[in-house]
Amino acid sequence: MKPTEAEIACFEAGVKLGSLYHQFSGAPVSIDSIESLSSAIEKSIENQPYCTEVSVEIFKDKVQNSMNEKYRYTELKGDMMEVRVEIEYKDTEVVSKMKVDGGYPLMFVESIEKK
Amino acid sequence: MKPTEAEIACFEAGVKLGSLYHQFSGAPVSIDSIESLSSAIEKSIENQPYCTEVSVEIFKDKVQNSMNEKYRYTELKGDMMEVRVEIEYKDTEVVSKMKVDGGYPLMFVESIEKK
Amino acid sequence: MKPTEAEIACFEAGVKLGSLYHQFSGAPVSIDSIESLSSAIEKSIENQPYCTEVSVEIFKDKVQNSMNEKYRYTELKGDMMEVRVEIEYKDTEVVSKMKVDGGYPLMFVESIEKK
Amino acid sequence: MKPTEAEIACFEAGVKLGSLYHQFSGAPVSIDSIESLSSAIEKSIENQPYCTEVSVEIFKDKVQNSMNEKYRYTELKGDMMEVRVEIEYKDTEVVSKMKVDGGYPLMFVESIEKK
Repeated sequence: MKPTEAEIACFEAGVKLGSLYHQFSGAPVSIDSIESLSSAIEKSIENQPYCTEVSVEIFKDKVQNSMNEKYRYTELKGDMMEVRVEIEYKDTEVVSKMKVDGGYPLMFVESIEKK
Repeated sequence: MKPTEAEIACFEAGVKLGSLYHQFSGAPVSIDSIESLSSAIEKSIENQPYCTEVSVEIFKDKVQNSMNEKYRYTELKGDMMEVRVEIEYKDTEVVSKMKVDGGYPLMFVESIEKK
Repeated sequence: MKPTEAEIACFEAGVKLGSLYHQFSGAPVSIDSIESLSSAIEKSIENQPYCTEVSVEIFKDKVQNSMNEKYRYTELKGDMMEVRVEIEYKDTEVVSKMKVDGGYPLMFVESIEKK
Repeated sequence: MKPTEAEIACFEAGVKLGSLYHQFSGAPVSIDSIESLSSAIEKSIENQPYCTEVSVEIFKDKVQNSMNEKYRYTELKGDMMEVRVEIEYKDTEVVSKMKVDGGYPLMFVESIEKK
């Protein structure tokens, strides 16, 4: 069978989360560059088709705890951030998220609504 | 509303294609290393949850045409490859693909089947 | 033989350019997100050891020419940007650059100075 | 001052290690796909200019310890691997390495020889 509108919207949400994660994890980050990195990730992924809003929170305490003591920075990892992606495909809105669950960055569909 | 089984399966398919693309595009590749790179990408992404099969075809002629003449290699780009990803989530099978369409690497759900 | 101070400084410069290129190329970018992306790349790579300054210029016209017409964005590629990285290792300063030369993003050491 | 032959060779070594690290870390990996991934990384980076040999060892026990228990895979991180890169630039040979040192993946020039 061909996908429904809602199934396509969920597929698109998955593409955005997979892209975001594998494009930006590994980027050097320190306390002072959290803000510019999270904001650039949001604006970058929002460019992708059907993506109406991305919000990325990188947690200060996780960056702090993971920092190399000598060089005062670390690399962005999935377990340091929480991500919310909003998709609008035709008349369907999907909200999807990435959250850490038991140390593992879990990606999931939070809600699907017909407008 | 919460997602159905088929919607989750489509979401998972999207995650795999987005991950594959943004993890591996940019990798140096030449005619002689096409085979090892495409095979490693398949085995790497197949590790992800609910992913039963990945096939990656990197096109020789596109690598050839894009190669730096002096150094005889190029970097893997979306328009040099075709990808097929199979997802099995509970009783639902999804086939999704990435194909170049008008120069742009298009990702889409090909089919959804209840087992 | 073990490396001299200047040789180590050059090595460090190479690490930064290679990191920057392979971490960030592929990121979705549009005219409106050039500024936030280039600034985040600079701040991210400046975190790496011995790196005193990074400047990244992403060229508007190259982003424009490469944009998908329907979705109005493209992906960051080496030939859309120019990068300058300054390294300070002990008493040696190295300036290195990435510039497009014949379509190929060339990385090189521009100058080495003893302070 | 302009760089010497040995300084350029060290710069090139740095480019390869930075590229390798930021291109491939984050790739999904399991015990069964270590071999194909490490081999593909070697062949991919060997394509880069002046690079005569790359060897990548991904440690089984580190992959094992880092694996998600449910899904039986993890993502490649710097502290799971050791890398050796050989550069030949004109008459100079450089050997450089990446090794974990105090939890931090340290990159360095091991030796420089005139042929």
